[in-house]
Amino acid sequence: MFKPKSVAMVGASATPGKIGHVILQGLMKGFEGRVYPVNPHEEEILGLKCYPKVAAIPKQVDLAVIAVPAKLVPQVMRDCGKKGMRGAIIISGGFSEIGNKALEDEVRRIANKNKIAVIGPNCLGVYDSYSKMDTLFNPRYKMERPREGGISFISQSGAVGAVVMDWAGAEGFGFSKFISYGNALNIDEVDLLDYLGKDPSTKVICMYLEGTRRGKDFIKAAKRVSLKKPIIGLKAGKSDEGAKAVASHTGSLAGTARVWEAAFRQAGVVEARSMPEVFNYARAFAEQPLPKGGRVGIITNGGGFGVLATDACIENGLEVPPLAKKTAQEIRKKVPSYATVKNPIDLVGDSDYLRYEAAINALLKDKSIDSILCIVLFQTADIDSRVISVISEASDLAKKPIVCCAAGGEYSRLHSQLLEEAGVPTFSSLKAAADTLAAITYYDEFRKSVRK
Amino acid sequence: MFKPKSVAMVGASATPGKIGHVILQGLMKGFEGRVYPVNPHEEEILGLKCYPKVAAIPKQVDLAVIAVPAKLVPQVMRDCGKKGMRGAIIISGGFSEIGNKALEDEVRRIANKNKIAVIGPNCLGVYDSYSKMDTLFNPRYKMERPREGGISFISQSGAVGAVVMDWAGAEGFGFSKFISYGNALNIDEVDLLDYLGKDPSTKVICMYLEGTRRGKDFIKAAKRVSLKKPIIGLKAGKSDEGAKAVASHTGSLAGTARVWEAAFRQAGVVEARSMPEVFNYARAFAEQPLPKGGRVGIITNGGGFGVLATDACIENGLEVPPLAKKTAQEIRKKVPSYATVKNPIDLVGDSDYLRYEAAINALLKDKSIDSILCIVLFQTADIDSRVISVISEASDLAKKPIVCCAAGGEYSRLHSQLLEEAGVPTFSSLKAAADTLAAITYYDEFRKSVRK
Repeated sequence: MFKPKSVAMVGASATPGKIGHVILQGLMKGFEGRVYPVNPHEEEILGLKCYPKVAAIPKQVDLAVIAVPAKLVPQVMRDCGKKGMRGAIIISGGFSEIGNKALEDEVRRIANKNKIAVIGPNCLGVYDSYSKMDTLFNPRYKMERPREGGISFISQSGAVGAVVMDWAGAEGFGFSKFISYGNALNIDEVDLLDYLGKDPSTKVICMYLEGTRRGKDFIKAAKRVSLKKPIIGLKAGKSDEGAKAVASHTGSLAGTARVWEAAFRQAGVVEARSMPEVFNYARAFAEQPLPKGGRVGIITNGGGFGVLATDACIENGLEVPPLAKKTAQEIRKKVPSYATVKNPIDLVGDSDYLRYEAAINALLKDKSIDSILCIVLFQTADIDSRVISVISEASDLAKKPIVCCAAGGEYSRLHSQLLEEAGVPTFSSLKAAADTLAAITYYDEFRKSVRK
Repeated sequence: MFKPKSVAMVGASATPGKIGHVILQGLMKGFEGRVYPVNPHEEEILGLKCYPKVAAIPKQVDLAVIAVPAKLVPQVMRDCGKKGMRGAIIISGGFSEIGNKALEDEVRRIANKNKIAVIGPNCLGVYDSYSKMDTLFNPRYKMERPREGGISFISQSGAVGAVVMDWAGAEGFGFSKFISYGNALNIDEVDLLDYLGKDPSTKVICMYLEGTRRGKDFIKAAKRVSLKKPIIGLKAGKSDEGAKAVASHTGSLAGTARVWEAAFRQAGVVEARSMPEVFNYARAFAEQPLPKGGRVGIITNGGGFGVLATDACIENGLEVPPLAKKTAQEIRKKVPSYATVKNPIDLVGDSDYLRYEAAINALLKDKSIDSILCIVLFQTADIDSRVISVISEASDLAKKPIVCCAAGGEYSRLHSQLLEEAGVPTFSSLKAAADTLAAITYYDEFRKSVRK
């Protein structure tokens, strides 16, 4: 599915903007395998010879990407079976999601009989940043594609996945694979979870789920996988009204909020409660080590932010313990008397990067601190980009996670981006930073509890 | 304080980057009153004649901005009293916040004896976007100044206020006044609340509080003011650990979370739980009408987002009721059969701006819907900036609040900004959008309950 040597694009179109055109264009950008457009009405599309049907392609083909009207899909699938293909991605909609269950069942019979593994129908398909396999039909100028990296995303909703990919592309986070699996003809979330669990280029798995047809298998697979790598789950349809909306969307059984929360907890899935949380947690898992516990050291150059950060950590079940005597003494030596050397450490408004260096280095050595939340207000006169070297160097060497908070206008945004690019997850909200530290702490606790 | 005809800048400095230089520069940009630098060691600063002391200024002066070492402040204040000045903003730190209570008491005695109203000490001072009175010493290239508008902000922490101002400046939201009041010598949050309650250019009041010395007066004043205009309160130090951090920061008594929550509720203060919430709520109050109730109509072009939005509304105590029959019929006529015409309304991935127009207009007429949450995924092939005209025109005419959600990379961000500039609060997070609708609904309910 992700690294085919050759792909037949069935339903390729010569008309710019049409789905069959956008997908063909996508496959011609970077993907190294051979691409065969299939369309009985064209001789050539985008400079490639076009075939009237799959059977007419002279060579062996690994995978079919199918974007033809629903009623033509069974015949295309039969052709693929005769051609000996083992995989198909059916983009076309018009099946069970609009009540056309009989047609979907027919396609499933053909697929299973011919041993064709199918992603879809009614989906966006797949994106692989390494092989550049890309069937997403959102135009590239509207939806950015992320660079290579360790985050993979399984999504029951194409739209949710598209937004996350676009976000990651814009912010510079690395992705491995994205799979929008639609109606799950014969490959579902459980199969995909198992697959990504074994995929060496996937370090973190994100899932958007509205429901599952295989609850027990899902929990088993998730538990198995989450011992190896973190799984972040966003469950939609947790309210009664949301569950009704699910019924009109993917037709899944949403299940109750409590059942899902329990299932996630049992399987060690880190639950995100919103889309931005999925993204925040994934960045932290991909970029930072896991904390050994929940004791957070807070550094700030604005006292109010220290107080708010403390509240946010406590609300999340984290601790903000007093500093060890030795740590306080070490910092005291290097900061003026009007700085507050407690936890939170307030380096005050005239702090420069050297005070940050002193505080971070002392916290890294302190065995009673498991992670660092470092707030930098770039509005102040004495802070400049040198603080970014200090933090990113510490983050490279550290065996404790470091996350940052920096909020404000353009100057602050630029510096936040530089921190991000240096691999330090940086948030404009203290709550987001604390939520994220809590998420990676929770995952570490789960792994320890299972290993005992 | 906000519109003096003349200002003495005591502690003006000729050295770029020094506080007394940055403030003087700020006062020379746009502020129309006369500015007199005071510094015994200079003849002229930035082209202005410099006076050795306040008494040497030949004309009457309304206000002193004081940025000299703490120990010199009493003498400066005596000079101001002799000069007949009625207001002073003391930027200087080094008083009760570092334990120097005696010096602060001395300054208070002098101020009260001479009837000088004082903002500070230990503060950033004030900013007024109309008079351009600006004592903030954050350099302008690091901290943007917001344009004229209806939001005012009272902050016990300079840093928190600075970030909000910078944010507003970058995002283009209008501010009226910002006041960082520091140690509250003889003007505190209660006085400022009363003042802004009467200030015609202030439509929405935001407060960052760590504590108050006048709990009962605060509740009374807040209740009086919040019947006229919304107050958004962010209380820091709600956890025990946060309260300890408050003691090291402003030395206030933080009070327990429950007491504050009850006080806010009693006084009709809309409680924000984080900095971004303050900002989100303020935008919605400033730009949109109040809803008549909690029934939300949701529009989306991505089904998953409709489900998540429904969950987020329900979690916030809002309702997502079924559409009235007439509304559904009206929309049905203008959208294809595969669209879902329920609440949430899913216009599906190939929706153009015309489907949005049909859905919004129908919801505006529907008496069983009080507010609209409109999700636009700009990643899709058929959406472009025409949907912005549709939404912003509806928002201009509407007597119901409309908020938007649009998430993603650069293309989506640009379009979100255009929506914002058209006066439609636009969020990248569904949770933020639902939280905000809940906040303005809560405020309307408070006002109705008091009026009964």
